[in-house]
Amino acid sequence: MAPAEETSKFCEAYPMKGGDGPNSYANNSTYQRGVVDAAKELLRPNTFFAVENIVEAAKFKFQSQGQDSQVPEFQVFFNDHTPNDFNMLFKSLPQNRRYYAVGVPGSFYGRIFPNASIHFVHSSYAIQWLSSVPKVVVDKTSPAWNKGRIHYLNSPEEVARAYEAQYTEDMECFLHARAQEIVYGGLMVLTVPGRPNGSSHSHSSINMSFQLLGSALMDLARKGGVSEEKVDSFNIPIYCMSPQELEAAVERNGSFSIESMENLPHVSVDDTVSKSQLLAAHMRAGMEGLVKQKFGEEILDELFDLFRKKLEEAPFFIETGKTISFLCVLRRKGNGLEHAV
Amino acid sequence: MAPAEETSKFCEAYPMKGGDGPNSYANNSTYQRGVVDAAKELLRPNTFFAVENIVEAAKFKFQSQGQDSQVPEFQVFFNDHTPNDFNMLFKSLPQNRRYYAVGVPGSFYGRIFPNASIHFVHSSYAIQWLSSVPKVVVDKTSPAWNKGRIHYLNSPEEVARAYEAQYTEDMECFLHARAQEIVYGGLMVLTVPGRPNGSSHSHSSINMSFQLLGSALMDLARKGGVSEEKVDSFNIPIYCMSPQELEAAVERNGSFSIESMENLPHVSVDDTVSKSQLLAAHMRAGMEGLVKQKFGEEILDELFDLFRKKLEEAPFFIETGKTISFLCVLRRKGNGLEHAV
Repeated sequence: MAPAEETSKFCEAYPMKGGDGPNSYANNSTYQRGVVDAAKELLRPNTFFAVENIVEAAKFKFQSQGQDSQVPEFQVFFNDHTPNDFNMLFKSLPQNRRYYAVGVPGSFYGRIFPNASIHFVHSSYAIQWLSSVPKVVVDKTSPAWNKGRIHYLNSPEEVARAYEAQYTEDMECFLHARAQEIVYGGLMVLTVPGRPNGSSHSHSSINMSFQLLGSALMDLARKGGVSEEKVDSFNIPIYCMSPQELEAAVERNGSFSIESMENLPHVSVDDTVSKSQLLAAHMRAGMEGLVKQKFGEEILDELFDLFRKKLEEAPFFIETGKTISFLCVLRRKGNGLEHAV
Repeated sequence: MAPAEETSKFCEAYPMKGGDGPNSYANNSTYQRGVVDAAKELLRPNTFFAVENIVEAAKFKFQSQGQDSQVPEFQVFFNDHTPNDFNMLFKSLPQNRRYYAVGVPGSFYGRIFPNASIHFVHSSYAIQWLSSVPKVVVDKTSPAWNKGRIHYLNSPEEVARAYEAQYTEDMECFLHARAQEIVYGGLMVLTVPGRPNGSSHSHSSINMSFQLLGSALMDLARKGGVSEEKVDSFNIPIYCMSPQELEAAVERNGSFSIESMENLPHVSVDDTVSKSQLLAAHMRAGMEGLVKQKFGEEILDELFDLFRKKLEEAPFFIETGKTISFLCVLRRKGNGLEHAV
């Protein structure tokens, strides 16, 4: 038996076409809606593909060692926050899957599994989410109060430091919990969107995107579409880490060895319009839940359309911004038994 | 680690008050709705209480043997059919639970867990449900065609035999799957509604209730409220077993020893009106999903009100009908290692 945990939050989105006619906004909005839904649906198949690959690889390992008869049965634990839609997940499970499927509600910043019960963890585009917005950035009396912005770029230095501190604390919780749950020698694979080593926060296109989204929100506030106070109290709990920062967290924790840390190849799109549409759809797929919760559904179309326009007006941003996804493979140390699983 | 599986379908319902005024039907209907909802909500707390008791008992066992330091962590797998509402289950999980909770979608008549991965199974008011309606009872060309009825009482003998055959097949699937999943020496506790040993199907008040519900449905058909053909093709996939029948299934399967088989005490209600209201609420809580799926929501109030009236008109039925709940404790045999878990 080789239980595996699979967590994910984001996924790729398809590029979408523009439209300049009198109905272009409405058309685009409907189209955008479709793209966003497609992006969300893709999340699940992507998760299932990842699980298939992991199970396949584990089987291959046994077979390649002539241990065909010892291939174990697999049990896969799909983890997500409790309010998420497990019903939909269960209904979407592939009919022909070769593993037992289980849903696990709860935050991965705490314990979600018994001691030493997991052999393999896969978490994709998830650990960039902080456990919560750092408290000080919504505290009007704090120097880290993040007035008029929704993320830490172009903010007082204290804001970025508060995000960094939250990241450090969260990552220690994550690694500490997993260290108890994963068997000695067990593996954990993390796919993380972040910024390259040696680049500053201000060069990360993820951070730049949040800055533009914040600026679009402030435009709406100025037009009276949303309350400025609400924007002041709204912050996106995402930290854009570098591979080195993750390495440092792993070393501080001490329970895992780093088996591999590598940047993933980047899929590039050529023209600026497609790029901005792609980014806008991406952003909406990832953020509309959070935005809706705070500001209501009615602002979504206008906000993300405004955001897309801001992207198009800032092609330099797309050219110069740096984003990477990187893959980090960790092995649970311990007991002198660090043989392969 | 001591994983446990907890399955349940039914629960107790509160008795409800009658009403004779001009609005009594509507009042009663609203009230009945409330009772049915309460019954469904009780299902979850009952499940959580059962789990708490099991975890408590397991802990106590370790402690009473002076093994305080060896009390394991507990992981509880909540199983239900895939279309059921796991989101609600997860949101209702007790905050202060002392176990890791997991949802497992899928029919317990097939495999749902890896080999030898479960130490304790608890299934309450669930295995009376067959995997499906026996095919022959909806086959117009078969002598077992169950025209004008929805269960096997007062039907051609072939109908009861088809139900019995389905029960035999299903129970073998259930026991075979669990035998693979439960560790040697592991326990399985089943709570089953059924009929006493030595009593015929026609004396079971469960069966009698289904006969009355079928008769209420046929009344609606005669009034044109539902199509008679639909009633002909509607059958309730529940088999009312006796402890002896379950024993026989366990012995045929061969993987479990019977540690205990006992009738549960019966909670009695004194007057006929309360009894029939209680039974009607009970029946609706358990059956309205099935009825709604076949006939639509709009017939529910009328059908179950008609059913309640039929119960009140047949007090002898309530007096003479026999129903028991019994508890069966099984232990997974094997390997000469049948020590306690």
